[in-house]
Parts: sequence; C-alpha cells; structure tokens
Amino acid sequence: MSSISPLALPFPELPEISGVTLRCVQANYKYAGRADLTYVELDEGTVVAGVFTQNVCSSSEVELGREQIKQGRARALIVNAGNANAFTGYRGQEAVEAIMGRVSEHLDCDASSVFVSSTGVIGEPLPIDKAEAGLQKAFAAEPCSWEDAARAISTTDTFPKGATASAIVDGKTVQISGFIKGSGMIAPDMATMLGYIFTDVAVAPEFLQELLSAFNKDSFSCITIDSDTSTSDTVLAFATGKAGGAPLTSFDDAGADAFAAALNDVCMQLAHLVVRDGEGAQKFIEVQVSGATSDDSARRIGLAIANSPLVKTAIAGEDANWGRVVMAVGKAGEPADRDKLAIRFGSTQVARDGLPVDGYDEAPVAAHLKEKEIRIGVDIGLGKGRATIWTCDLTHGYIDINADYRS
Amino acid sequence: MSSISPLALPFPELPEISGVTLRCVQANYKYAGRADLTYVELDEGTVVAGVFTQNVCSSSEVELGREQIKQGRARALIVNAGNANAFTGYRGQEAVEAIMGRVSEHLDCDASSVFVSSTGVIGEPLPIDKAEAGLQKAFAAEPCSWEDAARAISTTDTFPKGATASAIVDGKTVQISGFIKGSGMIAPDMATMLGYIFTDVAVAPEFLQELLSAFNKDSFSCITIDSDTSTSDTVLAFATGKAGGAPLTSFDDAGADAFAAALNDVCMQLAHLVVRDGEGAQKFIEVQVSGATSDDSARRIGLAIANSPLVKTAIAGEDANWGRVVMAVGKAGEPADRDKLAIRFGSTQVARDGLPVDGYDEAPVAAHLKEKEIRIGVDIGLGKGRATIWTCDLTHGYIDINADYRS
Repeated sequence: MSSISPLALPFPELPEISGVTLRCVQANYKYAGRADLTYVELDEGTVVAGVFTQNVCSSSEVELGREQIKQGRARALIVNAGNANAFTGYRGQEAVEAIMGRVSEHLDCDASSVFVSSTGVIGEPLPIDKAEAGLQKAFAAEPCSWEDAARAISTTDTFPKGATASAIVDGKTVQISGFIKGSGMIAPDMATMLGYIFTDVAVAPEFLQELLSAFNKDSFSCITIDSDTSTSDTVLAFATGKAGGAPLTSFDDAGADAFAAALNDVCMQLAHLVVRDGEGAQKFIEVQVSGATSDDSARRIGLAIANSPLVKTAIAGEDANWGRVVMAVGKAGEPADRDKLAIRFGSTQVARDGLPVDGYDEAPVAAHLKEKEIRIGVDIGLGKGRATIWTCDLTHGYIDINADYRS
Repeated sequence: MSSISPLALPFPELPEISGVTLRCVQANYKYAGRADLTYVELDEGTVVAGVFTQNVCSSSEVELGREQIKQGRARALIVNAGNANAFTGYRGQEAVEAIMGRVSEHLDCDASSVFVSSTGVIGEPLPIDKAEAGLQKAFAAEPCSWEDAARAISTTDTFPKGATASAIVDGKTVQISGFIKGSGMIAPDMATMLGYIFTDVAVAPEFLQELLSAFNKDSFSCITIDSDTSTSDTVLAFATGKAGGAPLTSFDDAGADAFAAALNDVCMQLAHLVVRDGEGAQKFIEVQVSGATSDDSARRIGLAIANSPLVKTAIAGEDANWGRVVMAVGKAGEPADRDKLAIRFGSTQVARDGLPVDGYDEAPVAAHLKEKEIRIGVDIGLGKGRATIWTCDLTHGYIDINADYRS
C-alpha cells in the first residue's frame, strides 16, 4: 500500500461471526509478497443478499452473481485481487466457473452457492492455473483475521477497512462484521468497490435482500469519488443464522428493527471508509440537500455537486467558492429556482433567496474549509426531498494515481 | 493571460463584416491594464439568433437574452469580462437593464435589441457605475480589431480565439467572422463560453436560428472540458444583410446550402478552439462513437467517455488504458452489449467483440498517445447512431487553475 490517506481510520476490533471462516493466501496474480486470494467458508444454512454495479459492461463475476443471488444460499466467497477479469469474454467466464467448480467439489455443495469477485486490471482473463493453485493452498491454510482479509482484497487502497455493529434480536445479541475495498470508488482498473458483510443473525434471504437494497441506496449509492461507475462493484451480505431463533422475515418480527439499524450502521461505516480512501483525498465532504421536489431529485442534485470537478477542486484549494455550488445545482437537470436557493458551508449561511446573505463574512467559512471534514448544505426551497451524499476533494494526488496506474 | 496552451492556434485574419463596428475599452471591472468591456454596434436591419446555457441557475443576461432573441433584431452587443453577474438576483438584473437603457438611448433603438453578456466571478452584482462610465468611453472610442475584441472578452483564456469562412450566395460572396472565449468550457466562475458570430449575409432571423440551433448541437454541445455546465454560456449569430439580395429563408433558396456549410464550419472551428484552451489541457481528444441505437445515444456515450476523469487522466499519462473506455461506455446508461463492443485508439484496433484483439500490439497505440491530438473510436455494434465529441485531458494544470481561481 502506498502512503496512507490523511483521512484513514484505524482498523476496528471486529467480533468473530459464528459460521464464518476466513483464509487468505498468495495466488501471485499481480502483487508480490502479499495475500491476494481470499477464501471465506460459510457454514451450511447461510443465506445471502447482494447488490451489484449498474454498469452494463459488468464482469462475468457480477453477471453470474446476479443470477446466484436469486436462490439466496451461500457456502463460500472467493475474492481475487490484482485482476478484475472484466471485458474478458468467454475466457473470463470460464475462469469464474472453474473456481466455482473447484470449491463446490471441495465443500460438496452446489456451484451456485459459491460467490466469486475479482478486482484489478481490466481486459486480462484471470489465469485459471494460478486460481486453482491458490485455492488448493487456501483449503489447507490456517484461518486469518478480518484485517488480513481486508488487506488481501485491496488493490490501490491505502488502508484496510472494516466496520461492526451489534443488535439484540429476540433477547440474543447478534453481531455484524464487514470489510470493504475501494479507493477510486469507481475506478474500473481497480475494479473497484467490493464490500462483504457477515452476521450470525437468522434471517430469511428475501428480507436480508430487502434490507440490503434499501440501505445500499442511502450508503454505497450515495458516495462518489470520481463519478466513474465500475464494471465490478459488489456488496454481499451473508447471514449464518448461528445466533439461533426463528429467521427474521419482516419488520413485524421482534428485533427486526434493531438488526436493520445495525446493518444500516455497518453499510454507512463501510461506505464512508471508501470515501476516506478516495484517490488523492485530503478532505471528506458531506453534501446535504434539502427542499428538493423529491428524495430522488435531492440525490441527483447532491451527486451533481459531489461530482463537479470545479466544486471538488475548490474544496481542495480551501476556497469558499459557493458560486460553483450554484452552478452544480443548475446543471443537475432537476427542478430548482435560482431565486429560492440557500447555501451553507459548515454552519455558516452563505447565500439565501438567490443572493449572497447581507453582510456575508467569509472568515468562519474559510476556517471551516481548513478542516478535514467539510459540510455543504443546499436548500432548494421547493419541496421536502432530502439526500446526503459523501465525496472527497479532487487533488494532484488523483492525477498522480490515475495518470500512471497501469505503467 | 497566463502561459499559453500548448494546443493554441494563431489568431486568423478575419475579414471585416459590413455593418459591424467593434470597440473595446477599460471599464476596470476586475483586470488592470486591459480592455474588459466590448461594445459592438450593428447597423439597422441586423437580425440575430442565439443559443443559451441549459443551466437552470442562469444569469440575468441569459434570461433576458432568451426573451430578446424571440424578436430576432439586434443593434448592439456588450460583453463585460471579470464579473459574471450571475446569482446576483434583482441587483444583477438592474445592472443589465441599465446597460440596455444606456445603449438604446445612444442608438435611439429598442432596449430589446441590445444584447448583454457578462463573464467572470459569480455572486457579485455588476457595478452599474463602472459599466456606465465604460460605455461612455466606448461610444467615443476608435474601432478595434477582431483580435482586440477576442482578447477583451477573455477571462482565464490563454490565447484569443477567432474563426472565419465565406460562401457564395446568389452570386455574391458572403463573409462570416466569429470569436469566442472559454477555457474551463464550463467553469461558472469564468462564466464561461461566450461566442459571437457576425456575417453580412441577408437572412431571415427564423432561418438563422434554425441553422444555429442545428449546428450548435454538433459543435458547441459536443465539446466538454470538465462536465460543468455554466450559468452563462451564450452563442449569438448576427447577420447585417449588407451583402445584399433577398434574405435566405430556407434551404430551398439559392446559396442557403453554401451559407449553412460556412456557418457550420465557423461553429466547429470556434468550438474546437475552446477545447484547445481547456484548463490544463495538453492533449486534444476526439471521441468517435458509432453503432449506437441512435445519434442521441451515441452522443451520451461519447460524453460519458469524454467526461470520465479516469479516461482523461489516462490520456494525460499517455496510457493506452482502454479498460477505462469500456467502463465509461457501461456507465453511460445507454443500450450497449459488452460482447459487441469494439475500441480503437488512433488507427489501431484494440478490442473487438468484447475482447482484446488477438495478438494486440500496444506499440502503435503508445506512439499515437504521445501525439497532441488523440482519437478514440468506439463501435457499440447495435445500430447506426453516430456522434463525435471533443475534449481535452485532465492534468495537474486543471487542479492548479481551479484550486486557487478566486484566491
């Protein structure tokens, strides 16, 4: 890993999840001297939910995963780092199927319950021989820690990322542990954001999917580093059921609210960690949009602000250039009225009713912009739609990383 | 002007347009020691057509201009540089109306035939006293050259930009001369792309508008520097009719095709000049999309490629990273099939049918990427839709310029 992001957080203590065994080994896909194949064994009875990239040029892993998720059962997860196996046609698909076959033999399970992800350079088929040799080692390896696994799935990440939360469900404590990689959130070469969440709760796969889809919308789908949507983004949630009790099937079940809140918390923590490792990031930026005509409209306005190179470079320069926020609202293609707009930086009102506020004092805004966590508030003044988007600034570091990633 | 873009072209010889008189003076809006107010007098009988930014937070100049253009008559154009007068509410509108009033008195014409543009920082109302004093000087000033006027409307542009073409209409030669400013094409602080085209052809305003709207779609609307849509983008075309003859009213009129081709040529030249002065640009990039399900779909795919920070930084790094082009096609939200995609860099086929071509040799691609003009070809393989988009690379220069523009 290269020099650590100034926004990095330490890797937290993650509780073990009963029914989940992590192993990681060197398959030598691309990186020398580090684990790059992660193999997670899941006990029988584990259910799974997942969300995947919207990119229509998605990898075979994603295409197969979308189908597998429908039956809701999982026995293993394999993550390959260093090669995204994307845009590799039938050869890429053969590699994924070979891995699924090899693991299903080993565990004596259905191939469709073996989930595979790959992350790294696009356009080179994953080498089947290296994958199979790696798996052979993994089957015999000692279990590894959460932090080891978080490192093993990394590509250009500068720090390993994990999160945890717990909840009381029906009188029992259930645990959630997750890890994630991503740095160009959405940089297909590194292909890209892969997140895995494990819990011992007993839950029906349909309800787990309902929760993950809903929370994804406000967490992973509300972060952006560079607006570039990967071919391989994947978040999977696995529930082993080892905490016991009847599976949760809806919000009517006792403890469902508590579990949902904890799962949402882990999704949000993991999503923010990706922003904290945004390529070249020096500032963590929260964009709060209110007063839009709908929540979806607020989200699109927030993304237009968070993806604007001019807004992001202004924050990098610690420049209270709110005119660029006005511009970004206006280009979002959503209902907005210039003369009803209000803009806030930190807790200072900058503009209201389409004009700079009377006697606007830039000093507190300038002070806020020197901090590492920046808050931009925009009220559209038309309705009740709200959304919060997280991003980072656009710096020379981003150019450095992406102008020579392959070379 | 700061150090000149490596992609700059020399200012061409522009013919005088009968009925057009250019003057530029120092109104001292922001810049010291240079002209910043351009005043163009247009003889009676001049018709006008215009296209304006789609940004919903547009400036008073743009809002008024959209109304004025409907009556199709123009007697004067005033361009203020250094202050965009955008997001300034009623005070901004008062400043524009003061200028229109002052000029209409001077020329004894309708205020609605006086067109005003302003470009520069957002959020500060244009000072009426400076504008009025500037106009007073301009009314008495000697005429200036096209190049002087092109410089006087500049903000962060690094070179003055002009273009010309001529056509034979009904046995007479008609001339077209135009100039433009823009560098962050779409950087609202500099507010932004302003283009003016003058011709002596006799043409009905409705037909001139029809032509300008059509050519705008394939020229100005097909360039992008940073995806940020300005609050003030404006292109106006003025026709004095001094070449004589009956006004062109449709393509059925003799010479209409020739004039249209010349006007299209000037629009395209001016649009490309803006890309050549893109903030931080080191490479001029042409993205050709074919095989999409429609021309509009091809345009959106081309813009997704041209706006992708990862594609633009790869070109900056002279890296033949075609995987990023695949990613950008996939994120465009348009119909595409990974396994039908073909990608070309320069004249070298890189990928076909969703796979790298057999025996792909990167050497000719690497050589092409060292040039200043880069061509990327993408065939979607689904239909007959085509579009060409022009952009520049994303470099440290862009960050330098935009992280400290205001300070």
